[in-house]
Amino acid sequence: MIKVVSKHYVKEGKVEEFIENARKMVEATLKEEGCISYGLFQDENDPKILTFIEEWEDTEALERHKTTEHFTSIVPILKSLDEKPGDLNIYKKLI
Amino acid sequence: MIKVVSKHYVKEGKVEEFIENARKMVEATLKEEGCISYGLFQDENDPKILTFIEEWEDTEALERHKTTEHFTSIVPILKSLDEKPGDLNIYKKLI
Repeated sequence: MIKVVSKHYVKEGKVEEFIENARKMVEATLKEEGCISYGLFQDENDPKILTFIEEWEDTEALERHKTTEHFTSIVPILKSLDEKPGDLNIYKKLI
Repeated sequence: MIKVVSKHYVKEGKVEEFIENARKMVEATLKEEGCISYGLFQDENDPKILTFIEEWEDTEALERHKTTEHFTSIVPILKSLDEKPGDLNIYKKLI
């Protein structure tokens, strides 16, 4: 199992637009084979920090996800709403 | 539901010691009331990045966690093994 944490620092005034696009992303991604869970989370102290937390069965499923129409069309929109580059970590479970 | 992502940047040569202490933390925390899930994850590209990903029923459960004997005794050990301050985010689920 692979865990992905993708943290975005969204521009002031662009949070709602980010969430609208993220909603489409979440809905389409949850239907993908190999996707265990996929959700969008908002920081309680800074609402401009929006983070996808994802679980994938294996690397193949994650790589396939990056080739989907929704990924290649929506990710550039999300990035255009970011104030600065986000933090992306791909994890394996230790404990 | 509250999601916590607590990312540690561990000192070179201290990863195993960090994991040993984290193991005690995970075992004790999973027994706490209000803890939905609690695990330690290692970055696939940088094994010195070790991250707790946690789910709590509510703020009260998370606050109670911070007063437990295992939290107050183990967290200072983990911090002493960190190369620099970590990133802590407390999230609510949006989508």
